Amino acid sequence: MSSISLAVTGAAGNIAYALLPRLGELLQDTETTLSLRLLEVESRMHALEGVVMELEDCAFPFIDEIIYTSNAEEAFFDVDYALLIGAMPRVQGMQRSDLLKANAGVFKEQGTALNKVADRNCQVLVVGNPCNTNAYLTMRFAPDLAKKNFFAMSMLDQNRAYAQLASILDISINQIDNLCVWGNHSDTMFADYFNALLDGQPLIEQFRKKEVLLREKYLPTVASRGSEVIKMRGSSSAASAANAALDSMIMLIDKNPDYGMFSIAICSSGEYGAKPGSIVSYPCQFDASGSLSVVSGLTHNDFAQGKLDASFAEIAQEIAQVESLLTTL
Amino acid sequence: MSSISLAVTGAAGNIAYALLPRLGELLQDTETTLSLRLLEVESRMHALEGVVMELEDCAFPFIDEIIYTSNAEEAFFDVDYALLIGAMPRVQGMQRSDLLKANAGVFKEQGTALNKVADRNCQVLVVGNPCNTNAYLTMRFAPDLAKKNFFAMSMLDQNRAYAQLASILDISINQIDNLCVWGNHSDTMFADYFNALLDGQPLIEQFRKKEVLLREKYLPTVASRGSEVIKMRGSSSAASAANAALDSMIMLIDKNPDYGMFSIAICSSGEYGAKPGSIVSYPCQFDASGSLSVVSGLTHNDFAQGKLDASFAEIAQEIAQVESLLTTL
Repeated sequence: MSSISLAVTGAAGNIAYALLPRLGELLQDTETTLSLRLLEVESRMHALEGVVMELEDCAFPFIDEIIYTSNAEEAFFDVDYALLIGAMPRVQGMQRSDLLKANAGVFKEQGTALNKVADRNCQVLVVGNPCNTNAYLTMRFAPDLAKKNFFAMSMLDQNRAYAQLASILDISINQIDNLCVWGNHSDTMFADYFNALLDGQPLIEQFRKKEVLLREKYLPTVASRGSEVIKMRGSSSAASAANAALDSMIMLIDKNPDYGMFSIAICSSGEYGAKPGSIVSYPCQFDASGSLSVVSGLTHNDFAQGKLDASFAEIAQEIAQVESLLTTL
Repeated sequence: MSSISLAVTGAAGNIAYALLPRLGELLQDTETTLSLRLLEVESRMHALEGVVMELEDCAFPFIDEIIYTSNAEEAFFDVDYALLIGAMPRVQGMQRSDLLKANAGVFKEQGTALNKVADRNCQVLVVGNPCNTNAYLTMRFAPDLAKKNFFAMSMLDQNRAYAQLASILDISINQIDNLCVWGNHSDTMFADYFNALLDGQPLIEQFRKKEVLLREKYLPTVASRGSEVIKMRGSSSAASAANAALDSMIMLIDKNPDYGMFSIAICSSGEYGAKPGSIVSYPCQFDASGSLSVVSGLTHNDFAQGKLDASFAEIAQEIAQVESLLTTL
């Protein structure tokens, strides 16, 4: 009987509320149990207790224990996986530099705590935005953990891309493969339809005549989807973000080459021209030994390469900005 | 390749938001697809569109189509299952009779629509409260559908009972079986620990000395759990209610005797002294042909029988009240 210990931050927030009741999806068999550590800021502990009550009221047979706390070292002690959802949201009147600075404080603390107490093979997936930069910061302050174990989520962009491409081209998402997201989780990200497959064949060859539609409708729709959801629902994406976090975690736990190419932001070694050491979304794949790497040999035309370069540059710029802010923390 | 068509009402509400991304759990194999019909009041169609966008952004491979509407006949057309979550909530200053009357209007309309357009074997699970009476009303206005296909949800009470019994007796929920909820989904419901099993043996025999604790702590905690969650979270149970609705729907779709005894409110034939024709939670079980019936031959001591009688009487009283209100609708 195996057990997984998982820490979740921002545990009283809306994304965690959508995610926690679905954690059973992470377990590969009915013998695996889950030890859950929930982290939240002190002022939200009351609400978190309510969430824990509801998790108890699900009577899940696979939950071994639930620890909830506002202490990062307690939450991260010996954990196999950390899902960092909590982040400072941008509030009215806040400059982007204020936002970066506020989050720098949060993720510096969490990286430091992970470095001190997490299992030495702990894998860390950052969902809280700006997630690439937040993952970079977490990794930077956890120097004793391997850089290859830090990730930021780009699966929500990938899922949005699949849905929009299918809708716009009037095909089924089940016909599409290898549609991956490159760069930063921001509106500069590039959901590369040039390397996508339709029924196993290059999609673009069958839809060459619709390329204007892909550039002018598909790409902007995917990029602005988050704010469109806010306009309609009145609050930001929670269910779909939680779903994408689960999709990502399932793959990180399962490490199965059969998943094929999928999008996740990892620590770059400079592949395709990104800044080495930055956290960049690439098409990635597991090999037979369960090792994850960037898919190599993909080609890009000038338009696509321009998109990649712009998004890679944005990531590098955010890192430079946050590095300069760190001196004032 | 089989397909299930499912209608969900109150689709822009919090319970539906927790439930809709988990609908994949209802499908027994990867070949089954889902046709989803979402019903919401006209004033919430904007929010519902946001929910639909998020469902699209989950890129679920099993979703065939999503229809969303404020027209009950459109939502229920030819559906195999209807999950009635939406109900009028009790607002400040509202009397209970006002609440019953408001809901009588809603469920009269929905029963009438189901009667007109749903598949003739459609199964209807009511979650919106007061769910027993709402299910009664729906059934009453759908005379062309079999009474055996109308249900109200008592699984949330059952799940709460499992969690509380395990916690209070310091045992695992996995050791408990046959813990079922009787009567109305209200604080009169009785979560019968006398017929529960611990590791296959009568639980009460091993915990006779703790019976005071079971009467004075376990029963009131289960009964008041909903309002305790509201106090802590600041809003009512959504994730755990959605989870219980899924638990119930999985069983209604799967019809497997291996589930053993579980709690669901069904149209009573007067079993154990309830009013025939009322919707009552009982321990139920599927037989090998997939037919659901009340477990017979269970015995109750005077204390338990008193609890059952009180809850059955409350249901009968609610029906009488709602029948008199119907004349004014």
